[in-house]
Amino acid sequence: MNTHDLIRELREPATTKIVLLVADGLGGLPLEAGGRTELETASTPNLDACARDGVTGLSIPVLPGITPGSGPGHLGLFGYDPLEYRIGRGILEALGINFAVGAKDVAIRGNFCTLGPDGTITDRRAGRPTNEKNKAAVEKLRTIKLPGVELFVEPVKEHRFVLVIRGDGLGDRVNDTDPQAVGIAPLMAEGQDAASAKTANLVNQFVAEAVKVLASEGPTNGITLRGFATYPKIATFTEVYGLKAAAIAVYPMYKGLARLVGMDILDPGNTLHGQVDTLKKVWHDYDFFFIHFKYTDSSGEDGNFPAKVQMIEKLDAIIPDILKLKPDVLIVTGDHSTPSKLKSHSWHPVPTLLLADTCRPDDVMEFSERACLRGGLGQFEAKHLMLLAMAHAKRLGKYGA
Amino acid sequence: MNTHDLIRELREPATTKIVLLVADGLGGLPLEAGGRTELETASTPNLDACARDGVTGLSIPVLPGITPGSGPGHLGLFGYDPLEYRIGRGILEALGINFAVGAKDVAIRGNFCTLGPDGTITDRRAGRPTNEKNKAAVEKLRTIKLPGVELFVEPVKEHRFVLVIRGDGLGDRVNDTDPQAVGIAPLMAEGQDAASAKTANLVNQFVAEAVKVLASEGPTNGITLRGFATYPKIATFTEVYGLKAAAIAVYPMYKGLARLVGMDILDPGNTLHGQVDTLKKVWHDYDFFFIHFKYTDSSGEDGNFPAKVQMIEKLDAIIPDILKLKPDVLIVTGDHSTPSKLKSHSWHPVPTLLLADTCRPDDVMEFSERACLRGGLGQFEAKHLMLLAMAHAKRLGKYGA
Repeated sequence: MNTHDLIRELREPATTKIVLLVADGLGGLPLEAGGRTELETASTPNLDACARDGVTGLSIPVLPGITPGSGPGHLGLFGYDPLEYRIGRGILEALGINFAVGAKDVAIRGNFCTLGPDGTITDRRAGRPTNEKNKAAVEKLRTIKLPGVELFVEPVKEHRFVLVIRGDGLGDRVNDTDPQAVGIAPLMAEGQDAASAKTANLVNQFVAEAVKVLASEGPTNGITLRGFATYPKIATFTEVYGLKAAAIAVYPMYKGLARLVGMDILDPGNTLHGQVDTLKKVWHDYDFFFIHFKYTDSSGEDGNFPAKVQMIEKLDAIIPDILKLKPDVLIVTGDHSTPSKLKSHSWHPVPTLLLADTCRPDDVMEFSERACLRGGLGQFEAKHLMLLAMAHAKRLGKYGA
Repeated sequence: MNTHDLIRELREPATTKIVLLVADGLGGLPLEAGGRTELETASTPNLDACARDGVTGLSIPVLPGITPGSGPGHLGLFGYDPLEYRIGRGILEALGINFAVGAKDVAIRGNFCTLGPDGTITDRRAGRPTNEKNKAAVEKLRTIKLPGVELFVEPVKEHRFVLVIRGDGLGDRVNDTDPQAVGIAPLMAEGQDAASAKTANLVNQFVAEAVKVLASEGPTNGITLRGFATYPKIATFTEVYGLKAAAIAVYPMYKGLARLVGMDILDPGNTLHGQVDTLKKVWHDYDFFFIHFKYTDSSGEDGNFPAKVQMIEKLDAIIPDILKLKPDVLIVTGDHSTPSKLKSHSWHPVPTLLLADTCRPDDVMEFSERACLRGGLGQFEAKHLMLLAMAHAKRLGKYGA
C-alpha cells in the first residue's frame, strides 16, 4: 500500500502544531582523523537540551551512499519518496520566483553570459550584472516570439533568469546548453525523445534570437540554459496530511519546493530572526511550519569549517524562541550533509531530533552525529520522518483492527 | 522477489523448534520525563538472562509512526507484510470463535443493543447480557431467512455475536451501522460498490427482521453491525515456511489470527500456566509455537502502569519453564507497544529478543527498550522476524550459488 494513501486513511483531525526546522546541509565531518564535526564543535546548549528531552537519530536522505540535491533532500523530509518524485531544477527555480508553473510548461534556468566575437564564452556569469541590468536584458528576451508556444522570461537575480515554454507535447529530456567552461561556445540543445526534441528545437531557435536581441547589451550578450523540467504530478501537503502548512524560507529554491507541495509561502525577510518573528505572527494560522536555514549549507559548501560552526550556534540561539510557542512536535534536521571538508553535499546521514511529549527516552544527551547514532530513532529513511511527526502530533489513527 | 517465494525456495527440512512468545503491547513509555518504562521498571531476571545470552533489537510493526491494531501487529510477526495483507475485524472475530469462514463469506461483528420506543439506542451493549441470554437472543436471530444467501449467527459473549452472510458476489465495503453513540438510531448500511451494495441491502433486511424477532427479548431488542469483512487470500504457515504450527492463545482474536495463517488452535484454558502446560504437552507434535500473552496489553490500555509491570513479571516467571523444553529458537516480543501513559496502542518500536545457539553477542545485558536500542538486531521491520527465526532454526538454505 502506498504510504500517502495510508496516511490519508489514518489521519485524524487535531489542533496540534508541528515545526520542521531544516538546517540545510547540517551533517558534517571532522577535518582530521580523531577530530570533531562542525556540529560536535559548536556550542549548542539548546539543541542539546532538546536531544536530551526528545529522541534522536540519523536520517538517510535517499539511500545509503546517495548524495541528494536540495530537491530530493527536501522532498524526503516532506514525506515524498525522492526516488519516486523527481523535480527538475527549472521547475524549482520558477516556483521560487512565484511563477505559476502549469501542466503544459517546460521551465528552464537561464544564465546571461558573455560571448566573445567568435561566439565562445568568456564569462559564464556575464560579470554578474546588477539586478537592474538583468531586468533590462530580460525585457529584450521578452520580445522573442516562437510559433505555437507561449514564452515567459522572468528575472531572478544577477546573471540568472527563468525561461518557461508553454505548449502542447513538450518534453524535458534536454541537455544543458551551459558547457560549464569558458573558451567554448554554448552547446546545442538536443532532445532524447520526440517530445524533448520539440523542446530542444524551440530552445535552439530561442538562443539564436537571444544573441540577436542582446547584441547591444555589452557583457550580457549571450545565454546558457539548463535544468529543463516539466511540472511534476504531486499531491499537496493538505491532500496527503490534512495539514495547513506554511513555509518560512529565505531562498527561492526552498520556497519553490514548499510551494510545489502546496505550502503557503511567507515572506520573513532575510534573517533567521525575521523567520522566527514570522513564525510567531502566523502561529495560530497554520498546523505545520517549515523553517529553512540556508547558511549551514553555504558555509559548508565554502569549505569554511569555523563559519559553519558559527551558523550552527546561530541556529541554536533561536531554539528557545521556537520552544516558547510550545509546538507539539519540533523536528530539527537537515536535507543532507554538507561537510566543510568536502565543500559539497554528501551522502552521510543527517543528525535529527524530534521533541514531543510522546518520545521514548534514549541515552542521548547532546545533539551531534556521534550521539545521534545511539538515538531512539535509529538510522531511518528521511521519507518516514513525516509519519513520525504525524504520530507524535496525535494526527494518525490506528492501522487495522 | 516476494519474500514468501524466497522462503519457499530456500527452506530446508529440520527438526528444530521455534517458540514465538508474544507479550501483547509489550513496549512502553515512562510516565514522566527521565523515568523508566514498564519493562525497565519490572524485575525480569529471566528475560534479562535471555537478552544477555541472545540478541536483542526493536521491532517496527508496520512503518515508523504507524500504530497497528492486533491484526496487522500479528501478521507482521508471522512474516506477512501488514500493508499487503489486510484482515477485517469481522473475519478475525469469526475465526476467533472457531467459525469456519470461507471464500464466499462476509463476516460481521454484531452487538446486541437496547432500543427505546422511538427506535433510538438507549444502551449500546444492551446492559451486557449474560452469555445465556446472548445465546437465547442468537437463537431468535437464527430464525431469519433471506433469499439467495445462507446466514450464520454465532454467539461470542455478553452483547457480542458474529453474523456471516454466505453467497455469491458479496462485497465488504459497507459502513458500520453502530453510530457509536446513544440517543440516535442505528445507521442504515450502504455499500461503496455494487457488490457491497448487495451486502448492505441484505444487512438492512436482516436488521429489520431482527427487530421483529427480538421484540420480546427485553433489553436485547436491537442490533448493530460493524467490521464487515470478506475472507482474505493468504498462504498458510505450512505452505510458506514448511512449519507445523500451534497457537496457544486465550483470546478469540489471536486464535483467529493464528487460524488465518493455518496454525492449529489449542485450548490452554485461561492462564499463562495453562498455556505453558499445553506447550509441554504438544512439544513433540509441532515445529512452531505461538504463545500469546494478553495482559501486558490490557493493563497498558487501562493506563495501569503498576499492573503492566506486574504482568511483565508474571511473563518473566514462566521463561524457565519454556527454556527447560530447550527450544532451538526462542523469541520474545510484542505485536506493538501499549504504553500505560497513552492508554492505547502506539507506534513505538517493540523490544525483542531472540535466543539461539547461533546468536552473535551484543553488549545488551537486560531486556528493556533502552537496552534493545544497542542490540544486535537493530531496529527492524517486524515482517523480517520470521526470516531470522527460520535462519537460527537452521531451516533456510543459502540464496544463490
